[in-house]
Amino acid sequence: MSGKLFIIGTGPGNPRQMTPEARDAAAQATDFFGYGPYLDRLELAEGQRRHVSDNREELARAGAALDMAASGRTVAVVSGGDPGVFAMAAAVCEAVEAGPPEWRAIDLEIVPGVTAMLAVAARAGAPLGHDFCAISLSDNLKPWELIVKRLEAAASAGFVIALYNPISRARPWQLGKAFECLRTILPGTTPVIFGRAAGRPDERIDVSSLAEADPAKADMATCVIIGSPDTRIVERPGQQPLVYSPRFAEART
Amino acid sequence: MSGKLFIIGTGPGNPRQMTPEARDAAAQATDFFGYGPYLDRLELAEGQRRHVSDNREELARAGAALDMAASGRTVAVVSGGDPGVFAMAAAVCEAVEAGPPEWRAIDLEIVPGVTAMLAVAARAGAPLGHDFCAISLSDNLKPWELIVKRLEAAASAGFVIALYNPISRARPWQLGKAFECLRTILPGTTPVIFGRAAGRPDERIDVSSLAEADPAKADMATCVIIGSPDTRIVERPGQQPLVYSPRFAEART
Repeated sequence: MSGKLFIIGTGPGNPRQMTPEARDAAAQATDFFGYGPYLDRLELAEGQRRHVSDNREELARAGAALDMAASGRTVAVVSGGDPGVFAMAAAVCEAVEAGPPEWRAIDLEIVPGVTAMLAVAARAGAPLGHDFCAISLSDNLKPWELIVKRLEAAASAGFVIALYNPISRARPWQLGKAFECLRTILPGTTPVIFGRAAGRPDERIDVSSLAEADPAKADMATCVIIGSPDTRIVERPGQQPLVYSPRFAEART
Repeated sequence: MSGKLFIIGTGPGNPRQMTPEARDAAAQATDFFGYGPYLDRLELAEGQRRHVSDNREELARAGAALDMAASGRTVAVVSGGDPGVFAMAAAVCEAVEAGPPEWRAIDLEIVPGVTAMLAVAARAGAPLGHDFCAISLSDNLKPWELIVKRLEAAASAGFVIALYNPISRARPWQLGKAFECLRTILPGTTPVIFGRAAGRPDERIDVSSLAEADPAKADMATCVIIGSPDTRIVERPGQQPLVYSPRFAEART
């Protein structure tokens, strides 16, 4: 007997930014797996069970959820933002590939959500209005040299760059190094947005320049967006400036 | 007297994937600007007025909306997906920068949404589970050589690539050329996802390989996702395969 596994994106953290589809999926499940703060975003009914795990135990969590779904239950794995962007969907797929055949028979439904860079961009203007990339700055799962190679490639080709997982207690120097690397390629005037907890009560959106960007402005709840050389800042009297990347671009040499 | 301008992301097209925040914003506006099919996604009340324009008249539409907001009305500019990704938010910011000073005094609120690549990825597995980029294949606003440069940079550095605006009647050959370009860099086995109308009744998700990818499978409602050399396909008996990009990566030479 094979059950159902939802992988649910709860959005950036503001309940008004969670889709009805995500809410409906959560209403169907009996068992919830995830990092505590993401599970806290759902109001569970009596009889719906929480299985909390640490944020870094993705593969073990995926396996436990798949096991329970394979036994016939309706299970939800819960992510912040979108589950497909540096979150649980890839971990579940990895577990399915490596796991027993019955895991491949589970009815798997992934429910997308608003990912952090979109919520931050909306607060700042339209920094992702032109070609862009998303890079996780965590070197737990890939070598630091590969991250540097990607930063250089993206900046040199004119992509706007959204950095996920920019900093943590265990990874204190990576964001500073990333800024150093980008300063060798991009003008010091390039806009940098520190978008913390976008859409939540403790939101803080800070616009700086690459020359002056201070890694201490970021924490684990921050998504950092670094403009391209075309990204512009429009000052507005009495309001936050608008940061945007024009839709058009000229060839550069 | 200065009014309010919302820029609303309606998500991929399935009403269950539109956020409550977007719905609430739409309820407040009196005048709606946008491409007809996007406006059709909103159920407007009596007295709420539609101002339909062609899909390619973004800047004129932004100016008309700003003009009306500056006169004191509550206006909504409506995008599909997320308004910050190849959509109306950048056009409005451009218009604000070039326009009269009173446009800078308008209370501008951008409401994010689920963008197409996230909806397509959710249907296919987790192809965006590792570093990725988004490129608009439209060469109306940038030279084709710049697009080729970005495709090469992204593929060479191991980014998964999401292509927006892959094809149209006026741009019939670009997607085929993009595949040709990527075949010189990536293995022929690299997974390619054609994600059409994800989440809508006429959804069609097609998984192919770069060697066999046929541009004729894409239309204007399609987002194309091209994997990295690490992206994997997990076959499932009786179900669509899962396509995912592992969270971890090794350095490549």
